[in-house]
Amino acid sequence: MKNVGVLLSGCGVYDGSEIHETVITLLTLERNGASTVCMAPDIAQHHVVNHFTGQPTEESRNVLVESARIARGEITDIKHVRTADLDALIIPGGFGAAKNFSDFAIKGKDTEVHPEVRRLITEIADAKKPIGAICISPAVVAKILEDRHPQVTIGNDLGTAEAIEAMGGSHTVCEVNSIHVDNENRIVTTPAYMLGPSISYVAEGIEKLVKKVLEMA
Amino acid sequence: MKNVGVLLSGCGVYDGSEIHETVITLLTLERNGASTVCMAPDIAQHHVVNHFTGQPTEESRNVLVESARIARGEITDIKHVRTADLDALIIPGGFGAAKNFSDFAIKGKDTEVHPEVRRLITEIADAKKPIGAICISPAVVAKILEDRHPQVTIGNDLGTAEAIEAMGGSHTVCEVNSIHVDNENRIVTTPAYMLGPSISYVAEGIEKLVKKVLEMA
Repeated sequence: MKNVGVLLSGCGVYDGSEIHETVITLLTLERNGASTVCMAPDIAQHHVVNHFTGQPTEESRNVLVESARIARGEITDIKHVRTADLDALIIPGGFGAAKNFSDFAIKGKDTEVHPEVRRLITEIADAKKPIGAICISPAVVAKILEDRHPQVTIGNDLGTAEAIEAMGGSHTVCEVNSIHVDNENRIVTTPAYMLGPSISYVAEGIEKLVKKVLEMA
Repeated sequence: MKNVGVLLSGCGVYDGSEIHETVITLLTLERNGASTVCMAPDIAQHHVVNHFTGQPTEESRNVLVESARIARGEITDIKHVRTADLDALIIPGGFGAAKNFSDFAIKGKDTEVHPEVRRLITEIADAKKPIGAICISPAVVAKILEDRHPQVTIGNDLGTAEAIEAMGGSHTVCEVNSIHVDNENRIVTTPAYMLGPSISYVAEGIEKLVKKVLEMA
């Protein structure tokens, strides 16, 4: 049985992991015979967004604690995760990837990435284990692996695509129901809700991504 | 196109809607050609549970605002939802159904149900439109419709099953990957995470439930 890490950044599209993308990832992994390890960094969220109004609030929440909602409590602090225990890593989207793992949403190509996220993704790439990155999370992978010039999808957001190119990566146009494979770097990406329009379209791309990652693992 | 209401009670298994059950419901509805209307009451949660530790916290959160995380902001206050606009109603599980819609988790058979939840479920039942109820939420439906003696699943939790019977309902044994149909009351139920053990099993029952509800709508 292949063991796949799923790296979460909170719980909710505007300040954490995109919930639909995460659940579809977990379901598709299990339906294809993989076991999963959900993980997140034990840090404060960049901010909390009221998802009804779309406005930031004064609250503070913790990325590991909120991610535990999607994982039904079965989640590990990323600092305890060893690359040797994983066959692959998948990172769902949601603005948490661009706000909590990194400050990509604010600083673009000059973003800093959380050290444990940087450590794990670098180790997985060094070990030639496959990485799946969904929606906005390819931007984080592209930043960490910028010396390796990864090819990733990001949807059609021009600013994000330009930042990817500025970091030394290469942005690839891809439909929402499809994936792009960077065979050299063993990275699989899909635009998901960066393109939308709705859950069944997003699911089609994510299901292809998960199956490809498992095939490469 | 059939229009199906999805009634949410927050975001997270221990104090709101169960996230996996909700996302699988939304995905299966769209894949089977239905449009969806997510809704929730605009009330404070009974409490907030830290899903990493499993312990209650001092925070307060709002059911509509947290439910909006799963719905990506596309959600309506239940008080604005008209029965005439819906072809069916589905209620995912999670302890929010037993703590926020009602105090079933505390008072069992003597629970009170939020007036708007009671209003909508009664109207849907009176209109002979189908209701799908997942996991613990059949307990709320059984309470509201107690005079009609509904048959529902609840998994194998003895206390819950006894409360259903005490409310005049009838508890039906059902596997996690299956459904029970009360044809007289037009109620479809599945145990989901009341039985577990994991997402792919739960998905099988929910997919059957959604298809049956759409067939009856």
